Amino acid sequence: MLPRPIARYLPILDWGRQYNRTAFSNDLIAAVIVTIMLVPQSLAYALLAGLPPEAGIYASIVPIVLYAIFGTSRALAVGPVAVVSLMTAAAIGNVAESGTMGYAMAALTLAALSGAILLAMGFLRLGFLANFLSHPVIAGFITASGILIAASQLGHILGIKTHGHTLPELLESLLHGLDQINIYTVMLGAGATAFLFWVRKGLKPLLRGIGVSPKMADVATKAGPVAAVVATTLAVWGFNLAESGVKIVGDVPQSLPPLTMPDFSPDLISALFVPALLISIIGFVESISVAQTLAAKKRQRITPDQELIGLGAANIGAAFTGGFPVTGGFSRSVVNFDAGAETPAAGAFTAVGLAIAAVALTPLVYFLPKATLAATIIVAVLSLVDLGILKRAWGYSKKDFMAVATTIALTLGFGVEIGVSAGVILSILLYLYKTSRPHIAEVGLVEGTQHFRNIKRHAVRTDASLLTIRIDESLYFANARYLEDHLYNRVLQDCPVRNVVLMFSAVNEVDMSALESLEAINTRLGEIGIKLHLSEVKGPVMDRLKRSHFLDDLTGEVFLSQYDAMAALTDILPAKDSAPIVTAA
Amino acid sequence: MLPRPIARYLPILDWGRQYNRTAFSNDLIAAVIVTIMLVPQSLAYALLAGLPPEAGIYASIVPIVLYAIFGTSRALAVGPVAVVSLMTAAAIGNVAESGTMGYAMAALTLAALSGAILLAMGFLRLGFLANFLSHPVIAGFITASGILIAASQLGHILGIKTHGHTLPELLESLLHGLDQINIYTVMLGAGATAFLFWVRKGLKPLLRGIGVSPKMADVATKAGPVAAVVATTLAVWGFNLAESGVKIVGDVPQSLPPLTMPDFSPDLISALFVPALLISIIGFVESISVAQTLAAKKRQRITPDQELIGLGAANIGAAFTGGFPVTGGFSRSVVNFDAGAETPAAGAFTAVGLAIAAVALTPLVYFLPKATLAATIIVAVLSLVDLGILKRAWGYSKKDFMAVATTIALTLGFGVEIGVSAGVILSILLYLYKTSRPHIAEVGLVEGTQHFRNIKRHAVRTDASLLTIRIDESLYFANARYLEDHLYNRVLQDCPVRNVVLMFSAVNEVDMSALESLEAINTRLGEIGIKLHLSEVKGPVMDRLKRSHFLDDLTGEVFLSQYDAMAALTDILPAKDSAPIVTAA
Repeated sequence: MLPRPIARYLPILDWGRQYNRTAFSNDLIAAVIVTIMLVPQSLAYALLAGLPPEAGIYASIVPIVLYAIFGTSRALAVGPVAVVSLMTAAAIGNVAESGTMGYAMAALTLAALSGAILLAMGFLRLGFLANFLSHPVIAGFITASGILIAASQLGHILGIKTHGHTLPELLESLLHGLDQINIYTVMLGAGATAFLFWVRKGLKPLLRGIGVSPKMADVATKAGPVAAVVATTLAVWGFNLAESGVKIVGDVPQSLPPLTMPDFSPDLISALFVPALLISIIGFVESISVAQTLAAKKRQRITPDQELIGLGAANIGAAFTGGFPVTGGFSRSVVNFDAGAETPAAGAFTAVGLAIAAVALTPLVYFLPKATLAATIIVAVLSLVDLGILKRAWGYSKKDFMAVATTIALTLGFGVEIGVSAGVILSILLYLYKTSRPHIAEVGLVEGTQHFRNIKRHAVRTDASLLTIRIDESLYFANARYLEDHLYNRVLQDCPVRNVVLMFSAVNEVDMSALESLEAINTRLGEIGIKLHLSEVKGPVMDRLKRSHFLDDLTGEVFLSQYDAMAALTDILPAKDSAPIVTAA
Repeated sequence: MLPRPIARYLPILDWGRQYNRTAFSNDLIAAVIVTIMLVPQSLAYALLAGLPPEAGIYASIVPIVLYAIFGTSRALAVGPVAVVSLMTAAAIGNVAESGTMGYAMAALTLAALSGAILLAMGFLRLGFLANFLSHPVIAGFITASGILIAASQLGHILGIKTHGHTLPELLESLLHGLDQINIYTVMLGAGATAFLFWVRKGLKPLLRGIGVSPKMADVATKAGPVAAVVATTLAVWGFNLAESGVKIVGDVPQSLPPLTMPDFSPDLISALFVPALLISIIGFVESISVAQTLAAKKRQRITPDQELIGLGAANIGAAFTGGFPVTGGFSRSVVNFDAGAETPAAGAFTAVGLAIAAVALTPLVYFLPKATLAATIIVAVLSLVDLGILKRAWGYSKKDFMAVATTIALTLGFGVEIGVSAGVILSILLYLYKTSRPHIAEVGLVEGTQHFRNIKRHAVRTDASLLTIRIDESLYFANARYLEDHLYNRVLQDCPVRNVVLMFSAVNEVDMSALESLEAINTRLGEIGIKLHLSEVKGPVMDRLKRSHFLDDLTGEVFLSQYDAMAALTDILPAKDSAPIVTAA
């Protein structure tokens, strides 16, 4: 057996040891189905990234094997995905012209950087950083990316050359190119799009209606893109449409993934670092949410930090074998899972299938029109577009709505990097703003219990000489002075108050700035003859306060519970009240 | 009477109406004392900012009058202060050469920008932004600034020309210039420094010892800098030291503040915007803390947003009358307060005094050596240096220590702007990091009460079938998945658990990302036969949850108190237990 520290980084040792014939046959069947689906998808995402078609296939072979060794998900299928391909195009479009050697080289560098970042995050256990991408930001970003991707592919459907990575740029180049529209391209592209939409929505009910089994109907639906590819390729070949201006895939080298060396020049690295960071984090978030959804269905566990290592290895693999940035894809993983894949070996078998395709089948796609690939992309990404998130966020919280709306608007208007960065920063700022003006409630005793609630919402007992303030936030620099102001304003207007209790049930931290404010409150209330007490101070907060002089200087006491405080500081809780309630020492 | 909206912005209407003879004579006495102190101080801070000496006096005249009209503090004295002068030198040193017209012009622009920013913050009620400067960051920044200022003035004491705005730069230019040391300058500078330190520490006890009244001893101490100025000026004049290389103040125009027009070219504005923002915020923080300290002593109130307007007007005034950025200074305000100033009119009288000085006294400072001004600065700022904050922060919390240490190190090493920005950003990141990994406690009933505490810290009653988790943090995007992971890990290892209660007493918010996680927890626990309940949900959080489907889908219930939850979900709280405790409906 390998030593534990090494075994921890090699999840393959877990499942590899128990591998058996049943698992093998299930994995093999899943691999065949996934391979058939991946051939057109890989070509399409290479097109989306602005790379030659073979790059899409190369990016699906070695990465999937490396993930099988290092990843923890049993069903995740790693390779090019729509959003990451779009981000790749945006990132390397800034440093090189599409179609040049420099462009393909920059894609390798981007994959290598992304791999290095993912590995570093994994070894440093920084997986939690992904949590700062909030749900509204991810939802807004995915929706906006779907719209951008669809817009970028519209040119291929119409036969217009488009450019740009924002919606205004894309729409403008579409408008300017309307005179280039190629009628044969439009017929093929629009026909393929309509067909694929129909396969998604109409085919399954139809097949079920004529008595086909659900499983077979499902497989037929998934094979839709393959049918579109075959039909349009035959049409281009049969009617010689390439000579009429229909853009085709053309020559694809018949080869296994080549060994490639990314360009590690410092200029390129500094230009691509930030995009690589964003691609890494967004790819990780997309991948882990797919992996966790699938794992939950079989009660398996995903280890986020090990996932970073798996995805990092996959990207390093892509960088050295002619690929571009990859991650765990939603549709391919779901197909793999539904097709019965039991272990990551299914991924390895898929890699073998794609390798065979790369060597043997590439001549068959010579006449495949790019419009068909664009159609498969458009149909796939439009299912990601969910503008309903705007309405749901509005209904739940204006803050979340602002994050969604900003992310969508800035992603469409200024591109993916600015959109997602602004969304993250705005979410954090809104959170900080909220915590800087905490909810502060005056509380009283709920009759017949020992429980204290807001006097504005519940019928509670209070005493005029005792003011109990519940602060609904940790006390830290951003809100310490807010509490001071609130308290002075409240106390100055109320003469009979003799005791102030700060109920700390919701205070999870008191930092040095807040300690300073508490000391000031204690002093100033003391000067006007009011005692300051604390109640329900949590263990970690109490530990911290004990390290300062605050507790020595406190004019009042620290009570275990607010009930104890009320019992000690007022006359309204004698034993004769309803029941002989015992108070804590 | 003026309409309310206008009166709100003119605090002068409050105190002006009740102004009487007593207040007048008190204000006049305070003004005379402050004027005597301000003449050398104003010259010195102009030197620190790299500006001609008269700029310091001009910056003290109109701004103080404008603050008297718009500010809310009765005792604050506005004018050039050490830290802001240092920041001014650093900011405009980047865009122009000291001693040029462009340099003085840039100082006007910086004051105008700073004034505009302060006014905008005031009208938009953004005073709370200053709260994001935490106590450790301010303390670290002030200490490091004090060291930087002292280092920058050391050259004047030694007669060496120094440059740079960071400690390494300053020390290097001092070392390189050791051969330029001027012995007469050193004698004057070191002598003045030693004298001023002695005045601070030794003079007062001495005077008291020989029977001088405390009040007089205090005045004599404050007059120390004036004595040093007079003595060294006479020495330079009498011994003709200016010809021996001692740098003197020289010609200062005999004039009232001139009307000046800042340079509003877009390039200059964009270069100075960030420094102006930092100067505004830091100036505001320094000023408001002085104002609040002094107001508290007389039970007066300071309105932070109106203070922004007062300081904004003062800086606009400085920009158009040959000054540079100003704020409320600590030492001058304390002197003003101690001297008995009752209203802002004292400030206006000080302005008259300084105007007289500007017209009549400037020829007297012709022979004043710059080394004396440097000595007054060094002695003043070294009292700001408090390296003990490092030890106190270390003792209280490592997080606060990191903020202090980073702010000090980066301010010394890379200048004031980088230092304070890094401190603020680091404080925020550390806070976010902490909230992203919340403290999560399992709680049980404290015997004989209805109060629940951590099972690890208190002797409490629990039931094996009931798991109660208290989350000590608001639930938001950064920690939602952390809670999910924690809960699954905890529940999967514990078979008898049938009910999970999330005790929400410390949960002050549930955002959309956290709602998603709660829904996932509810579903996944439901699948393995465990019911999810909530208890002690605060009003604002409950309002929010009611807007979603979560409460409809919840497998369990929402209890008013954790005690109710335990009573309903276990058998360990029957009525016979100790006392007939009534539970809430």
